[in-house]
Amino acid sequence: MPITPVLNPRYRDPHAYPHGVAWQDGQFIPVSEAKISVLDYGFLHSDATYDTVHVWDGAFFRLDAHIERFLGGVERLRMTLPVSTEDLRDILHGCVALSGHRRSYVEMICTRGWSPDFSRDPRKSGNRFLAFAVPYGSVANAEQMRRGLHVRVTDVTRIPPGSVNPAIKNYHWLDLIGGLYQAYDHGAETALLLDSDGNIAEGPGFNVFAVKDGALLTPEHGVLAGITRRTVLEIGQEEGREVREGALSKEALCAADEVFVTSTAGGVMPVTRIDDAPVRDGTVGPVTEAITRTYWAWHADSRYAEPVSYLAPAPE
Amino acid sequence: MPITPVLNPRYRDPHAYPHGVAWQDGQFIPVSEAKISVLDYGFLHSDATYDTVHVWDGAFFRLDAHIERFLGGVERLRMTLPVSTEDLRDILHGCVALSGHRRSYVEMICTRGWSPDFSRDPRKSGNRFLAFAVPYGSVANAEQMRRGLHVRVTDVTRIPPGSVNPAIKNYHWLDLIGGLYQAYDHGAETALLLDSDGNIAEGPGFNVFAVKDGALLTPEHGVLAGITRRTVLEIGQEEGREVREGALSKEALCAADEVFVTSTAGGVMPVTRIDDAPVRDGTVGPVTEAITRTYWAWHADSRYAEPVSYLAPAPE
Repeated sequence: MPITPVLNPRYRDPHAYPHGVAWQDGQFIPVSEAKISVLDYGFLHSDATYDTVHVWDGAFFRLDAHIERFLGGVERLRMTLPVSTEDLRDILHGCVALSGHRRSYVEMICTRGWSPDFSRDPRKSGNRFLAFAVPYGSVANAEQMRRGLHVRVTDVTRIPPGSVNPAIKNYHWLDLIGGLYQAYDHGAETALLLDSDGNIAEGPGFNVFAVKDGALLTPEHGVLAGITRRTVLEIGQEEGREVREGALSKEALCAADEVFVTSTAGGVMPVTRIDDAPVRDGTVGPVTEAITRTYWAWHADSRYAEPVSYLAPAPE
Repeated sequence: MPITPVLNPRYRDPHAYPHGVAWQDGQFIPVSEAKISVLDYGFLHSDATYDTVHVWDGAFFRLDAHIERFLGGVERLRMTLPVSTEDLRDILHGCVALSGHRRSYVEMICTRGWSPDFSRDPRKSGNRFLAFAVPYGSVANAEQMRRGLHVRVTDVTRIPPGSVNPAIKNYHWLDLIGGLYQAYDHGAETALLLDSDGNIAEGPGFNVFAVKDGALLTPEHGVLAGITRRTVLEIGQEEGREVREGALSKEALCAADEVFVTSTAGGVMPVTRIDDAPVRDGTVGPVTEAITRTYWAWHADSRYAEPVSYLAPAPE
């Protein structure tokens, strides 16, 4: 291909996108139109925070908790959200309503932005907000949900809290991506990373739980405070189980009766193989199944479900 | 502001941009048109690598070294650059030529991209390449170049190599941004971060050097292999100085005769104040000045300078 230096006044986008609706700068637009300037430090410095909430059967699940975590991240990054919290809610409802999706993956994002003179001082940038709703996606596909995920424990250390505060939900995923390729290279489907003490931390977009004698244990140090993780801890408490947040060694993980991972993208997902050995007998266990049932039942519970304001049909 | 859920078919961009030219998907376009989809994992997972080269008085400086480092990062991330190396060079020349800038900051970027079904498996994404040229920028402004930067040694740890390989030049800057705000809070102008042993690592976009008895010392562990850093080490060797890459403690830094930082964005930049104390007598030192002179002199040296193929005037 010869490169001919001729300037085109407008960019023409040749790519295909999933169906969805976004909000950016006061405008609801198809998700194919939602783009970040290449000069936005949200891209160039990954100087951004976000949160992802899902809509299941027409209702947001724990929207308040997601918004609260998102606003906490914005504040910790010393950003100013350019929309009010009330508008934020309306924007999220609007994206889902205009998309028509009944099951949706909804993301809210605040980026550092940039200044017209492209200053390197983050205090001079105008912060941006955007949001989008696309079809619901899951870490595990249907087959993996049924038979359990095959996970690799990698030697990659999750970016430690002394570098990036995990309370700021962030896009720093190269450690997770490195772990993922290490897992693929060993025939596994996804990865677990370590914390700086060599214990299990988390995986690409999910927290992890070990079940032993009916009790739940999940890592605490340097991991994302997942909303699904919190939900599972609450379910465990309601069921009268012992639940504990603390160090989880690889040995304890491999010796667990059951292992599962949790994410807004997929909920509670069984793990039946770690490295080259099955978890117990390699089948999805009863505690995982019970918690999964309750997790989905809570989606119809008015404590957690907020119906999307779908658009009223136009009057006849 | 009431949020009215009405879909607009196209996004209208209300923001201002610096002057520049970008290349994306086979098209040279104004930098204001150069945008990343909100679904590109180069944004959503900061799953991208890049390099920045500068043009000074109409010539690229050490373009080969920047391209080599960039291609190394692309390979380590298991990406496939969708353009040939020859086209890459032509694209960089084209961006600068069409911008008309004689002094320019030129960035080449490879992102993971996405797949039309928005799969979470990075192997399924189509990788994207883009590039842009904007006016040359510097970490230090004119006044800071003259009197030296005021730097704060923060307690933030640079993301360690066990998490993200620093040989992959990456956009994971939240540790650097956190350090920068810590510096601002203490009245400093920029920040130094620590490595996991508590020694000095690097700052937001720059490496650091200490000068003691004429010898140069720069950190080695977990820092970016900066091209300006390499150039300064080579200048030091040519000048017959002792040059060393190794651990630099905060104490050694503060006891140095001179301190400077290096970046493609600014070159060699003096540091005359660390925390609340001057470096030696608080003035820019002679070694820093000598190295700075040679650094800029090398920009006219045919070993390192590659003239930009500016567009020939149209034939009469």
